[in-house]
Amino acid sequence: MTTVSATPTAAVLLIGNELLSGRTQDSNLAYIAKRMTEKGIRLREARVISDTPDVIVHTLNELRSKYTYVFTTGGIGPTHDDITADCVAEAFGVDLPIHPEAEAILMAYFKERDIEPNADRLRMARIPVGALLVENAVSAAPGFQIDNVFVFAGVPRIMQSMLDSVLPRLEEGELVHSVTVYCHLGEGTIASSLRDIQSQFPSVDLGCYPGKMSGEIKLSLVARGTDETELATVKALLEKMVADLS
Amino acid sequence: MTTVSATPTAAVLLIGNELLSGRTQDSNLAYIAKRMTEKGIRLREARVISDTPDVIVHTLNELRSKYTYVFTTGGIGPTHDDITADCVAEAFGVDLPIHPEAEAILMAYFKERDIEPNADRLRMARIPVGALLVENAVSAAPGFQIDNVFVFAGVPRIMQSMLDSVLPRLEEGELVHSVTVYCHLGEGTIASSLRDIQSQFPSVDLGCYPGKMSGEIKLSLVARGTDETELATVKALLEKMVADLS
Repeated sequence: MTTVSATPTAAVLLIGNELLSGRTQDSNLAYIAKRMTEKGIRLREARVISDTPDVIVHTLNELRSKYTYVFTTGGIGPTHDDITADCVAEAFGVDLPIHPEAEAILMAYFKERDIEPNADRLRMARIPVGALLVENAVSAAPGFQIDNVFVFAGVPRIMQSMLDSVLPRLEEGELVHSVTVYCHLGEGTIASSLRDIQSQFPSVDLGCYPGKMSGEIKLSLVARGTDETELATVKALLEKMVADLS
Repeated sequence: MTTVSATPTAAVLLIGNELLSGRTQDSNLAYIAKRMTEKGIRLREARVISDTPDVIVHTLNELRSKYTYVFTTGGIGPTHDDITADCVAEAFGVDLPIHPEAEAILMAYFKERDIEPNADRLRMARIPVGALLVENAVSAAPGFQIDNVFVFAGVPRIMQSMLDSVLPRLEEGELVHSVTVYCHLGEGTIASSLRDIQSQFPSVDLGCYPGKMSGEIKLSLVARGTDETELATVKALLEKMVADLS
């Protein structure tokens, strides 16, 4: 499935009270975003929501009807606050039985480590009817894919391994490349020339980002687009602009 | 305005292509989330969207009708891709003229630093009709508040100073306190006891978060709620549970 057709789109749904209380700083969005960029999939939006069943069900149904892919993170562990699988099953109107292959994966993992396979641990083998498993190379308990929705763990290392394992399943889009020119000029100094360049290349997305790098404030001028020849021209124009204004 | 009435709610709207391409790792959400928790304001959701006018206008109108407060970050600088003020004005159906006080603040800042006050820099003095200014203690160019929407810069240091300056304007809600018990037990080991405790205290939000701390994997058991006496009881039960199962 690596054909280039209509450009695929995606949304990320980060689920967890800890992200909205400020306890946890998310890093999953940036990781997913980078991988989407590498596949040519346009990540259109992300949402952060709480562990509230009707909110999860409603938001998931909204996003899955709107985008080619939806990636969720969080809420698939063994404890009472892990309700994502239940909510995904509800959103799709399907049951959530123990999945024999997921159960076998967990049982083998528990046996190897002398862990008691209690009822809570086996909750992690409940998979919505019709879903495909997503491998968890870190701690066995699988994620899953149902239709266009991918359900991943919230722990970054596990989420990353799950996402990487499904990348071959995803349709690829035309790649968006980027070039960056750094400078020490103020945004207000370059704004007018930058606007001129942007208007000459409407299909290029030209952004201007101030930030600290190695202790000093630098401006990153980033041009993104699908046409690498055009980007090379824009990069040369940006470099000339910086030289002229320095 | 520090009365305790119906609990105020909030949403965060992070605006910027760079957040969806994976170029930039957001840290504004966690900062805003912590401040909301300190004020007793319930942060209900966050959204990350691109620099696309109709998406910004539509999302802002959806969120501002739903929550007591909306905080936006990003897109209020001097360059062509800074379109947040325009979109907020459009969402509210008001004009976006140069605001005399904002202009005076900028002119004083430019004069002091020998910066040329060109047309692009003065774009940052455009404020929707009816909005109040929000102080920028870092780089002068103000944010603004219009009705229940607060419009902040995207650069974390500036965003933080803007948010901190408006905290006294916000209505306070009943505080949600939290207690945390750390342990080295597996989630599957404690899940059953944890569920029992949760069912005894339905008004407490009990969460279980695995994570690395100082190099070792620890489990954080977090209880959140408005009743500190109840939280102390829950904490004691969690500690007893950990001791019993260790």
